[in-house]
Amino acid sequence: MADWVVGVDLGATKTALGLIGPDGRIVARERMPTEAERGPDDLVERIAAGVAALTGAAPDGGRIAALGICSPGPVDHERGLLVDPPNLQGLHGAPLRTMLSERLGLPVALEHDAKAAALGEFHYGAGRGERSMVYVVVGTGVGAAIIIDGRLYRGLRNSAGEIGHTTLDPEGELCACGSRGCVETYLAGPWLARRYTAARRASGLADPQEPVTGEWVARHASGDDVLARQVLEDAGRALGVAVATMAMVLDIELFVIGSSVARAGDLLLDPARRMMPACCYRSVGCRVRIAPTVLWDDGPILGSGWLARTALAG
Amino acid sequence: MADWVVGVDLGATKTALGLIGPDGRIVARERMPTEAERGPDDLVERIAAGVAALTGAAPDGGRIAALGICSPGPVDHERGLLVDPPNLQGLHGAPLRTMLSERLGLPVALEHDAKAAALGEFHYGAGRGERSMVYVVVGTGVGAAIIIDGRLYRGLRNSAGEIGHTTLDPEGELCACGSRGCVETYLAGPWLARRYTAARRASGLADPQEPVTGEWVARHASGDDVLARQVLEDAGRALGVAVATMAMVLDIELFVIGSSVARAGDLLLDPARRMMPACCYRSVGCRVRIAPTVLWDDGPILGSGWLARTALAG
Repeated sequence: MADWVVGVDLGATKTALGLIGPDGRIVARERMPTEAERGPDDLVERIAAGVAALTGAAPDGGRIAALGICSPGPVDHERGLLVDPPNLQGLHGAPLRTMLSERLGLPVALEHDAKAAALGEFHYGAGRGERSMVYVVVGTGVGAAIIIDGRLYRGLRNSAGEIGHTTLDPEGELCACGSRGCVETYLAGPWLARRYTAARRASGLADPQEPVTGEWVARHASGDDVLARQVLEDAGRALGVAVATMAMVLDIELFVIGSSVARAGDLLLDPARRMMPACCYRSVGCRVRIAPTVLWDDGPILGSGWLARTALAG
Repeated sequence: MADWVVGVDLGATKTALGLIGPDGRIVARERMPTEAERGPDDLVERIAAGVAALTGAAPDGGRIAALGICSPGPVDHERGLLVDPPNLQGLHGAPLRTMLSERLGLPVALEHDAKAAALGEFHYGAGRGERSMVYVVVGTGVGAAIIIDGRLYRGLRNSAGEIGHTTLDPEGELCACGSRGCVETYLAGPWLARRYTAARRASGLADPQEPVTGEWVARHASGDDVLARQVLEDAGRALGVAVATMAMVLDIELFVIGSSVARAGDLLLDPARRMMPACCYRSVGCRVRIAPTVLWDDGPILGSGWLARTALAG
């Protein structure tokens, strides 16, 4: 495991590469626009160029031994490709892992970005030293990646942790998935924006000049925007119910919250923590820890790097 | 594995023993009152007498090789004892597994009854041939035992599957656990009785002559009692939400429903099934199967027998 690896976070708009040392630290970085519409061959060439640029950064002639890459879902990690990805249509069905492996002459692992972020956090971040952990993405969507006894828990069809579309209120608002009152309708960025805008209008206030996003609401809640705080308080309570349910079903104690809306920090997490006594057995609730990610954007890169080492070992 | 084993279902009031053949069939039975208040030594003697009575029933001089026993919780399966069991106070802290093992000269396994029932159902009942399964107890209490890839999933402190005290409505009725709107307040037997009685009174009807229990409501719903049917319909919908949430978090497809309220059959299960499209991703919901137990009271005995074989192998 003394080799160097590259972790790649392939995003809808931007792609970030990191050269990761044997100690799990990122020592050099590359960034590029993703431009998936240019197709998989073009992307593979540009990633190869990024890897080449990183090669010189490994000290003492250390060599790059493997690469891990993660992307938004759905990802078929076994076949090493993306299946109809809404934000990366140009890459649909391309055998990305094999293409990268052949182009680079390295073992390559491909994984869903939330799962990679969870593995990064587990091995190098808030989950270090834990046995089990749930990583909860609260961004444009809401989902969770579950690590049990140090291993990713996938379920029967690799869809475990779809907490964003569990039901909080069967008579709640209509979600894009067709169900009502899903966790996402309380917690996902676009819903925070929608709820905030509705609250403003109900208070007779004009819409803000800038476009409102979930991150915007989170930022303004940190100021003195009372309505933004209320929206985050409600979101935090919904997060609390979802976390409590997972804690009771899975008997896992550490929940690490990441992605854009998580930047609201304790304005989101404190209301979630306050729900624990009300939504768990006392013996369970008092042990649940809801913590922010410590790796933020580095989580998917480090997790991909960890997967690269696994590919190397396999 | 060609040996005979004994499975014991230690209940709050009655204890049932079964002699189980190599093919997983119960070929002889013994029953006795539990009378836990007489203490562990007395109980161990009476179980030993039951085992002796079963010994002759094994054909061809087959010998009994191990014993498995299950009881209501909380059970410390590692130390082999009951920890402050509400309905079996006389047995609190007694090293039941060791006592039985020394008295019988056999390997003994001790497990929680819901977990034993789940293992029975998985190996010999509705779960045969499956990879993963959740067994949901709907009786005086509500809980679940989770089997992942053929193994009991326990969680960090052996409390995984506590679905009965997850929250359906934070503003719902006050549960005995101190929280509001727990799954149990919609679904557990005593709550069905309470909700049914309240519905009768609200309709201006007198209370029934007999005491109303959850099983009573289930039985009368099978007749033409419209209020009982409505209570079961509501209970089934709550079960559906709970099952859907577990299906989304765990990505498990088979949910087997057992215990007293489950005797209502499709009057309970059909409303639960109808919730799947509304409370799951369509791709998940269409695969979820909600099935009744096929082993009923034999589940805990057969599961205990399976554990006995495991104790033998270990």
